[in-house]
Amino acid sequence: MTEFIPPGTRFHALPSPFPMKRGGELRNARIAFETWGTLNAARDNAILIVTGLSPDAHAARNDANPEDGWWEAMLGPGKPIDTDRWFVVCVNSLGSCKGSTGPASINPETGQLYRLDFPELSIEDGADAAYQVVRGLGIDTLACIIGNSMGGMTALAYLLRHPGAAHTHINISGSAQALPFSIAIRSLQREAIRLDPNWNNGQYDDATYPESGMRMARKLGVITYRSALEWDGRFGRVRLESDRPDEDPFGLEFQVESYLEGHARRFVRRFDPNCYLYLSRSMDWFDLAEYAGGDAMQGLAKIRVDQALAIGASTDILFPLQQQEQIAEGLRLGGAQAEFLPLESPQGHDAFLVDIARFGPAVAGFLDKL
Amino acid sequence: MTEFIPPGTRFHALPSPFPMKRGGELRNARIAFETWGTLNAARDNAILIVTGLSPDAHAARNDANPEDGWWEAMLGPGKPIDTDRWFVVCVNSLGSCKGSTGPASINPETGQLYRLDFPELSIEDGADAAYQVVRGLGIDTLACIIGNSMGGMTALAYLLRHPGAAHTHINISGSAQALPFSIAIRSLQREAIRLDPNWNNGQYDDATYPESGMRMARKLGVITYRSALEWDGRFGRVRLESDRPDEDPFGLEFQVESYLEGHARRFVRRFDPNCYLYLSRSMDWFDLAEYAGGDAMQGLAKIRVDQALAIGASTDILFPLQQQEQIAEGLRLGGAQAEFLPLESPQGHDAFLVDIARFGPAVAGFLDKL
Repeated sequence: MTEFIPPGTRFHALPSPFPMKRGGELRNARIAFETWGTLNAARDNAILIVTGLSPDAHAARNDANPEDGWWEAMLGPGKPIDTDRWFVVCVNSLGSCKGSTGPASINPETGQLYRLDFPELSIEDGADAAYQVVRGLGIDTLACIIGNSMGGMTALAYLLRHPGAAHTHINISGSAQALPFSIAIRSLQREAIRLDPNWNNGQYDDATYPESGMRMARKLGVITYRSALEWDGRFGRVRLESDRPDEDPFGLEFQVESYLEGHARRFVRRFDPNCYLYLSRSMDWFDLAEYAGGDAMQGLAKIRVDQALAIGASTDILFPLQQQEQIAEGLRLGGAQAEFLPLESPQGHDAFLVDIARFGPAVAGFLDKL
Repeated sequence: MTEFIPPGTRFHALPSPFPMKRGGELRNARIAFETWGTLNAARDNAILIVTGLSPDAHAARNDANPEDGWWEAMLGPGKPIDTDRWFVVCVNSLGSCKGSTGPASINPETGQLYRLDFPELSIEDGADAAYQVVRGLGIDTLACIIGNSMGGMTALAYLLRHPGAAHTHINISGSAQALPFSIAIRSLQREAIRLDPNWNNGQYDDATYPESGMRMARKLGVITYRSALEWDGRFGRVRLESDRPDEDPFGLEFQVESYLEGHARRFVRRFDPNCYLYLSRSMDWFDLAEYAGGDAMQGLAKIRVDQALAIGASTDILFPLQQQEQIAEGLRLGGAQAEFLPLESPQGHDAFLVDIARFGPAVAGFLDKL
């Protein structure tokens, strides 16, 4: 219900109407963004970051907001994305609830929340909206566009639909099309939310909120964002200190269960369920093959960038390494100097958020050579 | 609510009372089983099969039931488990609802269904119950015990708790202890059932049945029983023929979603939810390390068999290959001639059920040499 907007967030008004790929349009829509560093006079040192499903635009601390961001270790002065050199922009995705317009926003035509009246959302819409922010900042061509997870899809859509919009690209744990295992996981997450009676076809409020459905969806998310290998070492079979209470014979017993519960509790009231459904579905729909007669590799080959890096984690079950390998190969077909860099990280899909020891040098190594 | 007993099922009455590992006891309990082939005069050609969570005892067609069983391609005359040579017994697990006593059975002390009054169920209880069936058939020592998935746990418990009970062992996609990724998945499956208001703390009936919870649990099961690799080839991004109906914007769209829905529909009313909860939890609890000061490998080393084979699928995310490798290594420490045979099967945990081209020769190769 509520939008969750970090302090210091800035906003860019989208052209009104803003047309959506699958039909319909938005009026008076906006994109939340933040920036770091300084745009130079030549306006050629700009980097755009497009995010995964849930993050806001606050990737790292900045003058407007001194709180740590979700990619704090990656972004800042002297960090892999060095804000002493680069002017960095991070946008909150269109359709999200962290300041950008989405299903939890007011529909100006009715004065009510959009909820399910929000038009069908595609990854491409998010890419087009991010493009407007960049242009609004006076940037013609990005030095680099960096996308991770869902943002890896968004970045590819951005590059394909806006030729010449970026010189280089780093794709992190992304993919050129959704494949059935990840579709199945996301479909089940959406089903969990929709099955919650409190979801009520999108007509919930804070008092009757689909908390159980969101909890299930988030737990399944966290399971697929990490890896069995990491958890073997991290949790093993360690049990919680307190015994299971007799009144709940199927209650939490193992540390790993408590870990999931904690993650879920922190999430369920901090992300709007309808926004979750829309963004989740947009990933299922994403397929660069649509742009090249059904061949995702040829869709990638239509993208024009000078240099690219595709990286991912060997333990990622949601966006497996083959998908980043395909991205590098497809971009090479399009003429890019593109490298595929598989990282032996135990932390699964989320490794780019936490395994900075591996992902940091990969990103820095690419950017430092530009 | 209902028990689902294939025609021709036989029953063995357990000693009454039958003590349970974690406390409590069962009275007048029984185990459902079927047999194939003929026990020879020396009574030394018997093989016991212990199963995964959901199968009944009808592993293959036999005189009592001509319907195909769940392991039809593996078991029969001239098949990998050759019933012209072996006398084969398959039991339905204690705690299940396919003829063996479980939470969906009548509690003789109350005349009501056990439901959550069933004592806490351990893998070891299932092993002890299966042992009683074998002894009841006049068999002192099995030629081989074969366990797959949960049955791989049951077989190890059987061997550890009943020294000399089997000469050899085939462990298929099993494990010596539950690890956190699989615990997390099963915990979430149980949560889905328990969250369904119709579960009602186990007090459901056919009219108010936790169908949604069971559907979620089953879909998550199927996702983790197969593999992304298989589904890429099998489903890709193929969509259902009918468009999504307008009234359900988040309804089924992709073939993989319809596949999961079909699996779930076939399962939810054919397996008792309370039995599911009990069996699922018993897997989380299973840990051979309990028998050896916290070291699973040393727990395995306490098992005495002459020869063993541990096999699994490279794409299994639920019982990953390292667990079968550990079993072979541990049994070798115990003095067995034990082989670990990883199979490059794309079908994930369920490969032993469907990839008979790989699993059949592995099983036959072991048994034929005995």
